[in-house]
Amino acid sequence: MLSCEVKLMLCNIVGSENFDDSKVGRLVYSYDATPQFQSLPDAVIAPRNKDEVAEIVRVCNKHHIPIVPRGSGTNLCAGTCPTEGGIVLLFKHMNSILEIDEENLTVTVQPGVVTLDLIHAVEEKGLFYPPDPSSMKISTIGGNINENSGGLRGLKYGVTRDYVIALEIVLANGDIIRTGGKLAKDVAGYDLTRLFVGSEGTLGIVTEATLKLIPIPEAKMTMLALYQDLEAAAKTVSKIIANKIIPTTLEFLDQPTLEVVEAHAQIGLPTDVKAVLLIEQDGPIEVVKRDMAKMADICKLENAVSVKVAGSETEANGLRTARRSALSALSRLKPTTILEDATVPRSEIAKMVKATNEIAEKYELTICTFGHAGDGNLHPTCLTDVRNHEEIERVEKAFEEIFIKAIELGGTITGEHGVGVMKAPYLELKLGEAGIAAMKAIKESLDPNNIMNPGKVFAKDDRKRVVVTK
Amino acid sequence: MLSCEVKLMLCNIVGSENFDDSKVGRLVYSYDATPQFQSLPDAVIAPRNKDEVAEIVRVCNKHHIPIVPRGSGTNLCAGTCPTEGGIVLLFKHMNSILEIDEENLTVTVQPGVVTLDLIHAVEEKGLFYPPDPSSMKISTIGGNINENSGGLRGLKYGVTRDYVIALEIVLANGDIIRTGGKLAKDVAGYDLTRLFVGSEGTLGIVTEATLKLIPIPEAKMTMLALYQDLEAAAKTVSKIIANKIIPTTLEFLDQPTLEVVEAHAQIGLPTDVKAVLLIEQDGPIEVVKRDMAKMADICKLENAVSVKVAGSETEANGLRTARRSALSALSRLKPTTILEDATVPRSEIAKMVKATNEIAEKYELTICTFGHAGDGNLHPTCLTDVRNHEEIERVEKAFEEIFIKAIELGGTITGEHGVGVMKAPYLELKLGEAGIAAMKAIKESLDPNNIMNPGKVFAKDDRKRVVVTK
Repeated sequence: MLSCEVKLMLCNIVGSENFDDSKVGRLVYSYDATPQFQSLPDAVIAPRNKDEVAEIVRVCNKHHIPIVPRGSGTNLCAGTCPTEGGIVLLFKHMNSILEIDEENLTVTVQPGVVTLDLIHAVEEKGLFYPPDPSSMKISTIGGNINENSGGLRGLKYGVTRDYVIALEIVLANGDIIRTGGKLAKDVAGYDLTRLFVGSEGTLGIVTEATLKLIPIPEAKMTMLALYQDLEAAAKTVSKIIANKIIPTTLEFLDQPTLEVVEAHAQIGLPTDVKAVLLIEQDGPIEVVKRDMAKMADICKLENAVSVKVAGSETEANGLRTARRSALSALSRLKPTTILEDATVPRSEIAKMVKATNEIAEKYELTICTFGHAGDGNLHPTCLTDVRNHEEIERVEKAFEEIFIKAIELGGTITGEHGVGVMKAPYLELKLGEAGIAAMKAIKESLDPNNIMNPGKVFAKDDRKRVVVTK
Repeated sequence: MLSCEVKLMLCNIVGSENFDDSKVGRLVYSYDATPQFQSLPDAVIAPRNKDEVAEIVRVCNKHHIPIVPRGSGTNLCAGTCPTEGGIVLLFKHMNSILEIDEENLTVTVQPGVVTLDLIHAVEEKGLFYPPDPSSMKISTIGGNINENSGGLRGLKYGVTRDYVIALEIVLANGDIIRTGGKLAKDVAGYDLTRLFVGSEGTLGIVTEATLKLIPIPEAKMTMLALYQDLEAAAKTVSKIIANKIIPTTLEFLDQPTLEVVEAHAQIGLPTDVKAVLLIEQDGPIEVVKRDMAKMADICKLENAVSVKVAGSETEANGLRTARRSALSALSRLKPTTILEDATVPRSEIAKMVKATNEIAEKYELTICTFGHAGDGNLHPTCLTDVRNHEEIERVEKAFEEIFIKAIELGGTITGEHGVGVMKAPYLELKLGEAGIAAMKAIKESLDPNNIMNPGKVFAKDDRKRVVVTK
């Protein structure tokens, strides 16, 4: 609970119309897209500019009040669930595209800008912002930066981190710093820009960002390859890369996912095959055509039963949209959907898919798998019911085995979703005790009172769980 | 001075053949490529593996002995000058290419591998490691990582940081951590990989690195555009980018540099023009040809007096080699050569070149300018004599004005050379007090006894100087 004094101070900073501690207001921001994590904040505040953010932070730092910065709450690691109360910070007033610089190929934005709005705005000028998380229709750039979001175009173009070149950040002590610049090269001191990208709001509050843009690719082609053998599809992925082709997109959907997605999207996806690869290439048209032909050959060599290029952009867009809707389609089937993103080197994709299926079978669970195969970043998704405690125990054991397998194959516990609360107990699998100690030292040095999104990244206890059962 | 006890411990770790505290041995490692910085280390040690590095670090941490990791010492910021004594760490035994992984497009190396050897090794397999600092014939990957080295191909392909995907690091407490992996995506905790890249050995010792590779471009073309007007050349640079062409290389040389380079290389470079742009594009041959034609048109529109495509790879290579030799060619002219790398957004190149010339004139100095124009990263180079104290005073005033101008234009004090000792007094210009305080907090959290390359990055006093006069 906030004291009257603190409440008054916060209201004075943002105006009472931007301060909400009503039960209803707090309830709305008590959870995010992550299943089964819920906790009430003490208040919800919408600052109008960086100076207000800095003032809020100063008050919170003095009174040791947690601050949870939040975009649209689409993250899947409970990264924006206010598990320790405190205030949720909204960026609805800080949502402008400040500048598109066509000479330096940059865009400068406030954190509340919706990802797809940004993408559209720069595309109107013939420029391209590649990171395209599945949630991009509603996710914000601030959220993307805090989570270092990936997307379908990550294979060729990288992730959010690869496009953030400057940040304005409010630190826990209320200092406002600016990192980087509209610069292709900058080695003046430590790379704080990249340290903050993906730090999940635990080191400071991003209040402005400059993103790198690239020229928009001239042409794009889309292709579906169908397989009756899951591992053959997985092998195709590493064969394509080993043949020195880097496609824009190389997505994988297994049969159960296909079925659900087709029922949802109804665009004529095949549901009688074991797996599908959705392959896209962009660039100069000659190159796109040549790469598509080469990739089609590789698919056939690897026993694809059918390879078909989309006849029109409408058809291609239908395929992409269907793929993006996989999570929402799957989540209609059962009360609880747990989506994971353990990631492996792409050469290990076939082994990881096989292991996942074996683990699902061992624990008698329904696990559908889809995701960014080209990145080695698959999303095994468990359809379950949190009220079934016995099944949930099995789910948690299964996911732990999946994480351990991923690490064994040289992978990681999370490729693009973040650690948040959900993955925190597993982080040591990847980083070891010494790695976590180094990160904690950095966290404590920048946020000694632990007010910046506390309870995230670093585990409070050893209990490994992917859901909170109440 | 090391105590007998410490000396014995260090000898026991590496063997006496890898420990050298002779006067001659120490003298050799008392300086690097940076003019006029010299300071004797207490000993020079060459560990054979990461465990020996960890043991050395533990001894040094206990006894508060500075450690300066050193590749070939080609840096230009006195980053490897042992200004506070202690031990210089050599990687001559840790210089193997451990693995080239053609399926995941990665190479794993020890820090002592010479950059060009790595480039050749991966090119034999049809793969490409883009970062190509001018010193690449002798620089090491460990040094490149510590300094986040750039190069001529940075415009299109980025810098060292963009290719480091995993590190093995010995921390100041002797812990060995591994960051990242052979992974396109990894958000398990803070991005320590990028934090360590460019941290100049002040946070830990890199003992192994995995680097991302890309398929080697199929074709490459090289072109020279000549100008009688410096600013026209500078304007061409931003025009090319604004026309949505990203060439591999877009280098600038002014007339004084041209003259010296030609005298040195004797390959028929024009010396009667005011400026030259060296432009390269690589990729599929159709695209390269199209881009070269478009860029040639832009050069002509911007009043180039001549635009000529290199007729053969030998000729192209001659041009590149000549450009790479600019620093060595210039340094033959006067006893002291001070090369800077203040960097600006590329739209500001013309203004920066103009300002540099005006500053040179104001202080009656000889400043030649060349560098990576496409990155906004120019190298104004002052030919002077450190024994001329009065002139050196002017040099320092001139460079301070250059740095201030770069910051004013949205730039930075160093694009690729690093801060080291030389730029430390200027760092606050770029980062402000709060930014430096944040970096210091991180440094102290990971290296509380300040043994990791002390005296670098953070200034000891306010005196701004680019040379040490003795």
